[in-house]
Amino acid sequence: MNATAIIGFVFSAAVIGLLFVVFLIRRIMLNDEGNDSVREITGAIRSGARVFLQREYRILAIFTVLMVIVLSLLVEPRPWSGVAYLFGTIMSALAGFIGMAIATRANGRTTVAAARNWHEGLKVAFSAGGVMGFSVVSLGLLGVALTVFVTGNHYLALSFAFGSSAVALFLRVGGGIFTKCADVGADLVGKVEHSIPEDDPRNAAVIADNVGDNVGDIAGMGSDLYESYVSSIAAAIVLGVAALGARDGVLLPLALAAAGILVSMVGALLVRPKHREDNFEQQVEGAQKSMNFGVFAANGIMIVVSFFIVRWMMGSLEVFWALLVGMFAGVGISATTEYYTSAAYKPTQNIARASTGGPALTIMQGFALSMISIVPPVIMIVVASLVAYAATGLLGIAMAALGLLVNLGVTLSMDCYGPISDNAAGIAEMAGLDHRVRERCEALDAVGNTTAALGKGFSIGSAALASLAWIATYFETAGIEVANLMYIEVMAGTLIGGMLPFLFSALAIGGVGRGAGDVVEEVRRQFREIPGLMEGNARPDYERCVDIATKRALREMIIPGMLVILVPLALGYTLGPKAVAGLLVGALITGFMLATMMSNAGGAWDNAKKFVESGEVGGKNSEAHRATVVGDTVGDPFKDTAGPSLNILVKLVGKVAVIFAAGFTALIVF
Amino acid sequence: MNATAIIGFVFSAAVIGLLFVVFLIRRIMLNDEGNDSVREITGAIRSGARVFLQREYRILAIFTVLMVIVLSLLVEPRPWSGVAYLFGTIMSALAGFIGMAIATRANGRTTVAAARNWHEGLKVAFSAGGVMGFSVVSLGLLGVALTVFVTGNHYLALSFAFGSSAVALFLRVGGGIFTKCADVGADLVGKVEHSIPEDDPRNAAVIADNVGDNVGDIAGMGSDLYESYVSSIAAAIVLGVAALGARDGVLLPLALAAAGILVSMVGALLVRPKHREDNFEQQVEGAQKSMNFGVFAANGIMIVVSFFIVRWMMGSLEVFWALLVGMFAGVGISATTEYYTSAAYKPTQNIARASTGGPALTIMQGFALSMISIVPPVIMIVVASLVAYAATGLLGIAMAALGLLVNLGVTLSMDCYGPISDNAAGIAEMAGLDHRVRERCEALDAVGNTTAALGKGFSIGSAALASLAWIATYFETAGIEVANLMYIEVMAGTLIGGMLPFLFSALAIGGVGRGAGDVVEEVRRQFREIPGLMEGNARPDYERCVDIATKRALREMIIPGMLVILVPLALGYTLGPKAVAGLLVGALITGFMLATMMSNAGGAWDNAKKFVESGEVGGKNSEAHRATVVGDTVGDPFKDTAGPSLNILVKLVGKVAVIFAAGFTALIVF
Repeated sequence: MNATAIIGFVFSAAVIGLLFVVFLIRRIMLNDEGNDSVREITGAIRSGARVFLQREYRILAIFTVLMVIVLSLLVEPRPWSGVAYLFGTIMSALAGFIGMAIATRANGRTTVAAARNWHEGLKVAFSAGGVMGFSVVSLGLLGVALTVFVTGNHYLALSFAFGSSAVALFLRVGGGIFTKCADVGADLVGKVEHSIPEDDPRNAAVIADNVGDNVGDIAGMGSDLYESYVSSIAAAIVLGVAALGARDGVLLPLALAAAGILVSMVGALLVRPKHREDNFEQQVEGAQKSMNFGVFAANGIMIVVSFFIVRWMMGSLEVFWALLVGMFAGVGISATTEYYTSAAYKPTQNIARASTGGPALTIMQGFALSMISIVPPVIMIVVASLVAYAATGLLGIAMAALGLLVNLGVTLSMDCYGPISDNAAGIAEMAGLDHRVRERCEALDAVGNTTAALGKGFSIGSAALASLAWIATYFETAGIEVANLMYIEVMAGTLIGGMLPFLFSALAIGGVGRGAGDVVEEVRRQFREIPGLMEGNARPDYERCVDIATKRALREMIIPGMLVILVPLALGYTLGPKAVAGLLVGALITGFMLATMMSNAGGAWDNAKKFVESGEVGGKNSEAHRATVVGDTVGDPFKDTAGPSLNILVKLVGKVAVIFAAGFTALIVF
Repeated sequence: MNATAIIGFVFSAAVIGLLFVVFLIRRIMLNDEGNDSVREITGAIRSGARVFLQREYRILAIFTVLMVIVLSLLVEPRPWSGVAYLFGTIMSALAGFIGMAIATRANGRTTVAAARNWHEGLKVAFSAGGVMGFSVVSLGLLGVALTVFVTGNHYLALSFAFGSSAVALFLRVGGGIFTKCADVGADLVGKVEHSIPEDDPRNAAVIADNVGDNVGDIAGMGSDLYESYVSSIAAAIVLGVAALGARDGVLLPLALAAAGILVSMVGALLVRPKHREDNFEQQVEGAQKSMNFGVFAANGIMIVVSFFIVRWMMGSLEVFWALLVGMFAGVGISATTEYYTSAAYKPTQNIARASTGGPALTIMQGFALSMISIVPPVIMIVVASLVAYAATGLLGIAMAALGLLVNLGVTLSMDCYGPISDNAAGIAEMAGLDHRVRERCEALDAVGNTTAALGKGFSIGSAALASLAWIATYFETAGIEVANLMYIEVMAGTLIGGMLPFLFSALAIGGVGRGAGDVVEEVRRQFREIPGLMEGNARPDYERCVDIATKRALREMIIPGMLVILVPLALGYTLGPKAVAGLLVGALITGFMLATMMSNAGGAWDNAKKFVESGEVGGKNSEAHRATVVGDTVGDPFKDTAGPSLNILVKLVGKVAVIFAAGFTALIVF
């Protein structure tokens, strides 16, 4: 088949993916919005999320204009690198906007549908996850393909990917700070000071808390994986052209990604929970099984499909092995994440048991566990990259990253299902719906917790492989022949790079602390100044809390964001391109490991608390329960702010390095 | 002057250092041992420490025999590498034995002397610190010099240094686990279950706790710094011969180290607190000032002395700049450690203030702070190694490490003063001495806490520079021309190396958890089974607790110890020498940063608790106090077990790599 046919296939797949998104949106919107109470709550969440997104996008717009000017003036090919960057930002922002707009329309509808029948609820929530999932892959593929074919310059795929990373920075880091300011702030005043339950509508920060789930876990995760996805395709194209020539180097990654969209659609359509007896355990099991089936089916089909695509386009199988090992790494990392964070397994149960000795042991045990939990992912990434490299050189690493992400459509649908069902359960609580509905929503939410945890492991693994691919791309584009560890500037670079994730995490966690303080003050003020609020006769000013958390999130993002961009530049223009190579490796090592450690610690503490609440080790209100609550609170900014933000850091330093590589020169020569 | 004169100077300095040790021992032993009660307690501590040391040395002996056989058979020059290794082990073990034997004889004498006069107490404790300090440097220098001059093979200095690292592994890692098993175990039963005060003689683990201070903080720190010291000298010799030729390469580092011993003696003799009015603040201030004066004077003199030695031996100043920058890095790292961990500064005070919101905020704030606290040390190490390298290449890095450690005699005296005065305060408490004596001992102890914290920062900084020097040595001895980051095996090595410190810390912290559990059970059993114990009519079986903690420490050391030795070997014999180069860099990055983070977190939590206990933020028994107690407990294994153990890991992987470098081959070639 000729190149035109393949190009046609690529664009068709992207368009079919977008049509699928339209189909899913229709399916969701046909559902009932619910009674006044549900509508009021979802309206508040929706408008809060919109306010956050508008505010973020406004600052992002200013940032983008600056970057476009810089790139258009300084980076070859001028001004196209700036244009491609702009296009990358727009497409990623659009995916985030669509995904979140629908998520905030689907949460209440999930509640209402679950009131009819639990598997109807699952269908709505999973469809909304699918809107994010398929928007991301379709707009991502479409964007890369348009960039490459319209300009005829495959290097511009890198600028396009760079554009998406700014969105990821704003939504993942900003969103991560926002969500935990609201969450911690709401809990500190509500649960601790006034002893009112979680999700109580009298708490002024409760809507902000629900907005946070959408902002951090849906838009944030979506933009993070969008970036990993387009980065992997772009890296595969650049390294592919170097290894396979201009035609196949461009077409093969795009064809694989296109096939992935179609296969993911099949997988998503296969998620069909069976009608079953309506009890909690069976619902959880049924929901989990149906989703697992969809993802496994998609992976199985994709293995066969990619085997034939590679053999047919290449005539040999080297690239296929790299893809395959990437897919396995993705599944393997998700599985070990589940092992280390789920209450069904020993590690988390051990934290719960240690908690009978007080919070210090909860923390200590959680730390020891999360430090060990980095071992399997590290080994899997090492093995995957060794095998992929052995199969087909540096290109293999990019292909492994692409293999991990090729089914992102269905995987991300499942990841985003989690926070939507979480929201649905919160709405059922706030609207005071009947016990049975709440139980059903909680069953959906329980599955969602697992899928969200898997999603975190998956996003870290993909960030690690994607940034390895970009390090390889950096060597290619910077024209570095040798970045010898013996060179002192390389060594200095690794130390500085290794330091960045620690500093970045500290700033993010500190930002959450400061922001939560602001929210606490505001909630207290409202209880004090709004007459009748505590008695339930007045409505709190939800918008103000959203506003405060949004402002804080934007403000606290500035320094870490600047660091990620300016430190590689500063190093590149003083110690030269080899020091930057060291920096990328250093940042990958500590960033990947700290991210895994913090995400898993947070996940395990969260589930240890739930394990105790389920009646084990003393149950609710026991000494052990209080200890696990401390662990859960510590873990919150770990798993929802600092951990995921490190994904962005690790990828972004690589992008800055690649894009500005041509200008790096050593001011000081050793 | 000719070589013979310089060699004579080196041996004279080492001998003078040993005579100084004899002088100090005499000065200590002339002091009164105290009344029966004090003698009984110190006797129990002394015999406990002896039991621990005997047990450790017995296992160490078996390990040493194995290693000597392996080295004698496999590593060139055979069998001399095995012999030098054995000699290194013996000299280090001897320094540890002397230092600890005197420390456990000086603690009670410090109490008694302080009863007379606080500055007499300081003199005894500081003299005992000096016994460790000058034993370490004198035996270290003597050992390296004998090895090099007797065999005529300067490479054997490396085997000698390798021998010292086994002792460090056993005393620092084993001692670190021991001390926290005893400490946490004693607290959990004593303070929590029976509400009896710390250091209460009815608690069966109380002697083990005091033994732990000697074992972990004196013998452990001594052996750790002994290893850094001889490693720096050995690296400077090997890199010096490569850069300066056989004569100067060997003589210059030895001459500088010899001068350092004499200068340190002057510094130690200048520690003369003035007679002052006898109140707490003045005592603390006086003690601190007198020690600072000694250390600063030694550094000042050493700068002048090394300037002349280098100029006179080399005719140029390159090496001097490297030494100077190392000295500054040492002082700078100590200063920032103090800033981040002392209650006199904002960071620790902020932890105390955050604690009013409960333990979760204590932990979160402590984490954020400790993650930021790695930034200044990393930058200082980076700048120091860049400047040193610019001055005189790879040799410069070894010289910077030597510069940092050249005044180890007086620095280590000050570091070891801390745990001795801590012990003295504990003895005053246990023996029920009068209020005034206890207050004086506490003043000595307060200073000791600061010096011990500085010592931790110093030991981490020295470990980082020493292992950088060994990485340089590895490149030299392995004959690696290029360890390109682009090589996939180098990348894989960095990831695996980066993973090791996480795994190692987790195992160490887990070991403390398990060991503390054993101690708890034993203390409970004794309270249950020994009639009249609770009423103070019977004596608990202290030895059993020492025995249990010793066994546990030895058992929990096995896996981490094996990991450090076997992983570099496994990598070297499969992926080859370049992968090992990656491993060393990866381990240095995460090991250095995690060690700094954990030590500073532990130190800051400890001092935040003391800050609250001093009456700030609510004072003793407030909500904030309970929260800081949680922080302090979490921090204990961080700062006293995992953190310091990472120093050993970082240095030991480098040693294994250097010694076995010649045999490394890539089984799998990419």
